[in-house]
Amino acid sequence: MPEDFELPKVLNAKKDKNFSKWFHQILYLANIIDQRYDVKGCFVWLDYGYKIMLSIKRVWDRLFQKNGYREMYFPLLVPIHYCAQNDKWWAGFKNEAFWVKGGPEGKENYILRPTGEPAMYPMFKLWIRSYTDLPLKVYETVSSFRYETKHTIPLIRDREITVWHEMHTCHATKEEADRELKLQMAMWDKLWKECALWPLKVWKPKWECFPGAVGAVEYYSVMPDGRAMENGSCNNLGQAYAKKFDIKFRDRDGKEKYVWMTCTGNGARLLIAMIAMHGDNRGLVLPPNLAPIQLVIVPIYYKTNKNVVLTFARKIEKMLSRKFRVHLDDRPDKTPGSKFYDWELRGVPIRLEIGPRDVKEKQVIAVLRDTGDKIPLKLKNLKRDITGLLNSMQKRLLEKAKTFVQNSIEDVYELAKLKGLVQRKKIARVFWCGDGQCWDKIKAQEPGIELFGTDLKPAKKAGQCIACGKKTRTIGYVANTY
Amino acid sequence: MPEDFELPKVLNAKKDKNFSKWFHQILYLANIIDQRYDVKGCFVWLDYGYKIMLSIKRVWDRLFQKNGYREMYFPLLVPIHYCAQNDKWWAGFKNEAFWVKGGPEGKENYILRPTGEPAMYPMFKLWIRSYTDLPLKVYETVSSFRYETKHTIPLIRDREITVWHEMHTCHATKEEADRELKLQMAMWDKLWKECALWPLKVWKPKWECFPGAVGAVEYYSVMPDGRAMENGSCNNLGQAYAKKFDIKFRDRDGKEKYVWMTCTGNGARLLIAMIAMHGDNRGLVLPPNLAPIQLVIVPIYYKTNKNVVLTFARKIEKMLSRKFRVHLDDRPDKTPGSKFYDWELRGVPIRLEIGPRDVKEKQVIAVLRDTGDKIPLKLKNLKRDITGLLNSMQKRLLEKAKTFVQNSIEDVYELAKLKGLVQRKKIARVFWCGDGQCWDKIKAQEPGIELFGTDLKPAKKAGQCIACGKKTRTIGYVANTY
Repeated sequence: MPEDFELPKVLNAKKDKNFSKWFHQILYLANIIDQRYDVKGCFVWLDYGYKIMLSIKRVWDRLFQKNGYREMYFPLLVPIHYCAQNDKWWAGFKNEAFWVKGGPEGKENYILRPTGEPAMYPMFKLWIRSYTDLPLKVYETVSSFRYETKHTIPLIRDREITVWHEMHTCHATKEEADRELKLQMAMWDKLWKECALWPLKVWKPKWECFPGAVGAVEYYSVMPDGRAMENGSCNNLGQAYAKKFDIKFRDRDGKEKYVWMTCTGNGARLLIAMIAMHGDNRGLVLPPNLAPIQLVIVPIYYKTNKNVVLTFARKIEKMLSRKFRVHLDDRPDKTPGSKFYDWELRGVPIRLEIGPRDVKEKQVIAVLRDTGDKIPLKLKNLKRDITGLLNSMQKRLLEKAKTFVQNSIEDVYELAKLKGLVQRKKIARVFWCGDGQCWDKIKAQEPGIELFGTDLKPAKKAGQCIACGKKTRTIGYVANTY
Repeated sequence: MPEDFELPKVLNAKKDKNFSKWFHQILYLANIIDQRYDVKGCFVWLDYGYKIMLSIKRVWDRLFQKNGYREMYFPLLVPIHYCAQNDKWWAGFKNEAFWVKGGPEGKENYILRPTGEPAMYPMFKLWIRSYTDLPLKVYETVSSFRYETKHTIPLIRDREITVWHEMHTCHATKEEADRELKLQMAMWDKLWKECALWPLKVWKPKWECFPGAVGAVEYYSVMPDGRAMENGSCNNLGQAYAKKFDIKFRDRDGKEKYVWMTCTGNGARLLIAMIAMHGDNRGLVLPPNLAPIQLVIVPIYYKTNKNVVLTFARKIEKMLSRKFRVHLDDRPDKTPGSKFYDWELRGVPIRLEIGPRDVKEKQVIAVLRDTGDKIPLKLKNLKRDITGLLNSMQKRLLEKAKTFVQNSIEDVYELAKLKGLVQRKKIARVFWCGDGQCWDKIKAQEPGIELFGTDLKPAKKAGQCIACGKKTRTIGYVANTY
């Protein structure tokens, strides 16, 4: 439990005034997580939050399996001698690992899975003998662990990183690996659309990639507090890891060669980005494609017409539940108003209100979570109309996210104007020559900012590096990052 | 990796001659697990095995959620002070726990989740204030960890117990908890039917239950090697844990009371029981309701008619894939014979063979995995016919399991005849007075045997205790156990 954590009773923080407080309140009140579990950087997933995560997993599963990825599970305990094969990484990482021993008097022979590589790659070495074993495409959904010494933030910087999806591939040629990376990016783009999110895609600075790797594309979320949050990456590992873990195959020409590898992954940060992008002062706003409950039916009645209304509501529930994820809120001890409050907090896309008059008119009143619009819908075309409303809400949210990201980007041409980005809630787009000293100069403009990546495509027209003035086509993005 | 593990190339062990070797061969060759991961008691779930486990999870999810259980996720790291609340358990267990510390120089403040209680119950205490918070019904699917010092057997006795489902409930009254236990047993019975398995249900001997608990019903699998394997239990915990973890609520009458609790759980042993019960010398035989692939289509053609056959096969695949889990095996470099071998090994319930003549006759040849029967099916009623074949196979397998369990039980009236049970592949049913000394006498008849539980219902007619001759209605079951 964070020391300053206060259990919220109602959502009263304002998103635009105190984003951090609003975020913590919503995580608990919308039944997403409980932070009171007494281990730093760990928390309990409550049922509603866990359901959203499983919705995201379903999209991943569909995308991966369609593209030939096989889901497996690798053990949590990673032996030290597996880790040590990747010597440089291990020298740096071992202080950030959780060490494990059997019994209080045991020897520390293992660490907790920090990331897939050290557990998976020694197995890949066993599995791959010949070009006929390639490509090998594997994924798993697990918890990963970091003994994070920095300040932890739930779902952003945790010690147990939960519901983490990661996929790893091995190929016979560089060209195949390059193509796989493009395929991964296409899967990511689809996933982000389902989440109604718009990414800022950049190349990771070369010196932050694994030595010997070809490069990495990183997806960033622009957060409402004006900061950029890394939100997954697609890594073209080249043969760097294959050499560390000695993963070789006999090719058609009879020669032994190292495989070419890629990997990619993501976890709860997509949920965080959804909450941050679309939530409002009344709670979550979930994109219809991922919402665990798409429609909540709230019957509104007096004692005298209770049965009529409830019967009608149950009929509607039955009619819709084959096509949609529906919940009928028939709790007898709650007022309609308190039901509205509960489901708005949980971000259910459409509320269907049913009163005595609606029974007579053979209709329901649809209330849209994002706009608040109230729309009477006749029973006759109910399924078709609801499908239309959900689809247009999904599109509207995606469009909103796109506009937000685009409007957050500010072209900056002078070093001094890199100050105050967070106050202005802006990400700076700058020309940068690619030089490390210029990178340092940019970073030095204000504590917390950095050039976190470069545009996937070079500029059509060259400009002057913001730091040294040299002509360049490389565009960099500068922001405070999480 | 077990020291004596040899990587099998073909399934050549015979199930009835060398069950253990057959079992290890099938686990690897049917793509279920790879035991070569270099940590004792841990293994990699390969994609096919993991898919079967997720099929089982889907049944659990449906059953639980329908009955008001909420899926959550509790952290892996359990602080020592949570464990210590259950003082007697902790005194015994701490040597069997994996201890964890942050970094190589850290302090051991946590253990790895050994079972749900120590992580969940301190949270339950926070969540439960009043009778309106009850019942609380929670489940999670996780890995659990034991620093198992005994010989490990994959999926039966592991150090990482994977895809483990466990559910915990809190109630206001003993009656409600009793009712919940019955509900749990009803859910279990449904699950076992989906797995085409027949349980031997017994009361756990009182002295093996948690002190203060009301009792526990245990489900046992009778294994083909004549041993009994515990395969999940439904525990009526009474108020024993509530007192240890101080879980109280304010009741309608204004008084503070301890809650009444139940818990139940299971993991990969259901898969083990399915493999053991239904597998044969050609591989797995999976019950249709759980098989990740229900139908595999194998086209059989020469060069001259390849296109005609493949086109027809694809049409059949498309036609069936809306209703069934279908796979078309169109690998160009494999013979039909090697495809048959692969899918028989993986236990796919029905193989659909399609040759040039079948195209002409507008039919497919269905080959049943369990009986080997070959049945031509006309296209006209294909979906209906396949539904019928799958349903009758599911029933046939269940019936086979029931008969097997019933035939494995032998009434024994003399202590001396408790010898040689494993050689005879029998479970002994005996009268037992309930006395601990008599229990010891039974156990002493042969190393490895024990009276592992008593029948849920007392005998209609009393008999004499096998050990002391006293009249009793209690029926006990004696066997070598896993």
